[in-house]
Amino acid sequence: MNDPVVDPDALDRLAEVAVRTGVNLQEGQDLVLTAPVEALPLVRRVAAAAYRAGAGLVTPILSDPDVALARYAHAGDHSFDVAPGWLYGGMAQAFAGGAARMAIVAEDPMLLADEDPGKVARAGKANSIAYKPALEHISNFRINWSICAYPGQAWAMRMFPDLSPDAAQARLADAIFAASRVDQGDAVARWAEHNASLRERTAWLNDHRFAALKYSGPGLDLTVGLADGHEWMGGASQAGNGVICNPNIPTEEVFTTPHAAKTEGRVRATKPLSHQGTLIDGIEVEFREGRIVEARATKGQEVLRKLIDTDDGARRLGEVALVPHGSPISQSGLLFYNTLFDENAASHIALGQCYSKCFVDGDRLSEAEVTARGGNSSMIHVDWMIGGPETDIDGVSPDGNVTPVFRKGEWAV
Amino acid sequence: MNDPVVDPDALDRLAEVAVRTGVNLQEGQDLVLTAPVEALPLVRRVAAAAYRAGAGLVTPILSDPDVALARYAHAGDHSFDVAPGWLYGGMAQAFAGGAARMAIVAEDPMLLADEDPGKVARAGKANSIAYKPALEHISNFRINWSICAYPGQAWAMRMFPDLSPDAAQARLADAIFAASRVDQGDAVARWAEHNASLRERTAWLNDHRFAALKYSGPGLDLTVGLADGHEWMGGASQAGNGVICNPNIPTEEVFTTPHAAKTEGRVRATKPLSHQGTLIDGIEVEFREGRIVEARATKGQEVLRKLIDTDDGARRLGEVALVPHGSPISQSGLLFYNTLFDENAASHIALGQCYSKCFVDGDRLSEAEVTARGGNSSMIHVDWMIGGPETDIDGVSPDGNVTPVFRKGEWAV
Repeated sequence: MNDPVVDPDALDRLAEVAVRTGVNLQEGQDLVLTAPVEALPLVRRVAAAAYRAGAGLVTPILSDPDVALARYAHAGDHSFDVAPGWLYGGMAQAFAGGAARMAIVAEDPMLLADEDPGKVARAGKANSIAYKPALEHISNFRINWSICAYPGQAWAMRMFPDLSPDAAQARLADAIFAASRVDQGDAVARWAEHNASLRERTAWLNDHRFAALKYSGPGLDLTVGLADGHEWMGGASQAGNGVICNPNIPTEEVFTTPHAAKTEGRVRATKPLSHQGTLIDGIEVEFREGRIVEARATKGQEVLRKLIDTDDGARRLGEVALVPHGSPISQSGLLFYNTLFDENAASHIALGQCYSKCFVDGDRLSEAEVTARGGNSSMIHVDWMIGGPETDIDGVSPDGNVTPVFRKGEWAV
Repeated sequence: MNDPVVDPDALDRLAEVAVRTGVNLQEGQDLVLTAPVEALPLVRRVAAAAYRAGAGLVTPILSDPDVALARYAHAGDHSFDVAPGWLYGGMAQAFAGGAARMAIVAEDPMLLADEDPGKVARAGKANSIAYKPALEHISNFRINWSICAYPGQAWAMRMFPDLSPDAAQARLADAIFAASRVDQGDAVARWAEHNASLRERTAWLNDHRFAALKYSGPGLDLTVGLADGHEWMGGASQAGNGVICNPNIPTEEVFTTPHAAKTEGRVRATKPLSHQGTLIDGIEVEFREGRIVEARATKGQEVLRKLIDTDDGARRLGEVALVPHGSPISQSGLLFYNTLFDENAASHIALGQCYSKCFVDGDRLSEAEVTARGGNSSMIHVDWMIGGPETDIDGVSPDGNVTPVFRKGEWAV
């Protein structure tokens, strides 16, 4: 099973990078791989690459969009509060037992756009609760894990609605392969180079240990306080199990944990946010003492308000990330409707749960210690883009000194 | 995703029968559904039918033949002793929590025929051990479950190697739909009728409570002692959770538990046995005091000997089943290379594990009580066909009275 318009050599390179650079699968390590059935051509190559790399057992858990839609079309109301806790509990057990995790995204980002938003929200919530024991291994970075993408046709048609299905898929394939640095050459070597350059950025930021970042630009007058003892990360990093992996293929960002109570000012999103099949556009938000006190959107405002009402932490920041305007994904000008790509198109912030790993000695901190240092907690983690070609960012040191970080959307250092 | 040569209306009927007659899914009950990706057109219809029937959540666990082959092509030796215990443990938890189980077979029965038999055996053994906690819910019939079939193209090509892939698939589709009684009319009503006729047979056999069955025919001089307090079953029956279901779609057999120590005589298989991708043909076996003391095969003899050497119970009978020679599957003259079909083509016996449910009050018996009544235990359960158009079977009552059961391959009653 191959999609005729998708370059098989690039797929081979992507599988190799996903296994060797992405999860960096260890000899004898099991791999739990989630993917929609559209991604089978990549799933099969990943399985082969993983076994070549010495995998114990590769277990794909394949989802199907039609089965998901059948639920909304035919299920009784009671179905929308149910989730496969037994499967997620099993995955948590696999991770606790040493398995690595890979996810392949390929699905239509608007799959559920026409379904009852109340049911979508309930099913999503039930799923989040059930998935928590497995997710904790990921969000606390206990194990090596990685996400990459396959150009599913339904996804491609959302991005290129005027093209034929094959042409749209070919365009998305090119975009994914370019962004993932597998379009040519020795992809694993290119990733080693890319990781080194991201490491230079995080080293510089960690040397400065700014107390806050001050953003200015069109619709942007925002100060984001950083968490006490925060650490900048980006590209390859070391999981709790000691394995250095690249959680995101592609990735362009460096990121850290803001202080949940120290964001002040106004910000306008520079790109629309695709959230559970709804496009939220023209977001404008005001923060006081870390908390959103006013939120508007020109499109999808109700979904935005429901989102920030999920819990108290949903109104506070859990991540701040820097991406130059000149990054390849930004320059492509494409909106992928998928965070894995879109968060690499611009500097962004995320509402909700923080990454406990983005602290000095983060893997040794208890939940209470993370909270004490200013780390936010929430059921959600939603990125949105605030950077653009006019964005300036200054680093403010604890004693008030100001150092340019970004000028006109690009690194100033 | 539809296979163009497979009749979508028959598939709709099969999905409906699988959900309503097969598992008889209850309002609010979850369904765990295993299938290879080839079966997606049926998986999707089953999901829709299950939700229409009031399912809580339908969770498909999809396997992929190429991923299975990638392991044999690329994995290190250590991989073949590993199994996804976390997934099977989760399934056991789902069943314990009230979920029903459906399996769809569709895969190439000779998928692993060209792989290293040692690795195939090791992987199979690791899988059997890991799957045991989940399988117990099925083999002890605690929950409602069912298996049905989809005409996968690779499977079809094994059965009809001289046809084009599409023509072969169309032939297999017709055969599956006819055998599964979904080729026309109201399939659910046809199944109600079929179940009633099987129930008449089991009622007659249970009224007589024979001590033994005496087989005669070409190459056949065999007395199979039946277990103490055995019960005949067939068609629909009640699971431990109270739900009446049809574990096999199709099914033509009535069956019970023989006594592990009371089979005497000689038997020749009337059809080849497809075991883990190997065809074992021309099987001839001699039993003494329930145990195989001599076993030969004109083809696949080594595999047969390995099989009966699995454990002591692998040399003893765990099931005896009666199928008239005139059954639709027998009359089709096809060898499906799959037990779900082939066991319905002729009267058969099975080596290995017995069904504890085939006892009076079977769901209340402990493992020790089953053993005390003559029930066999083993890691394996392998059916093979011994009935043909010349087969006579007599029922021998405890006091030695003889009652004709089969004459010339057909019911004598």
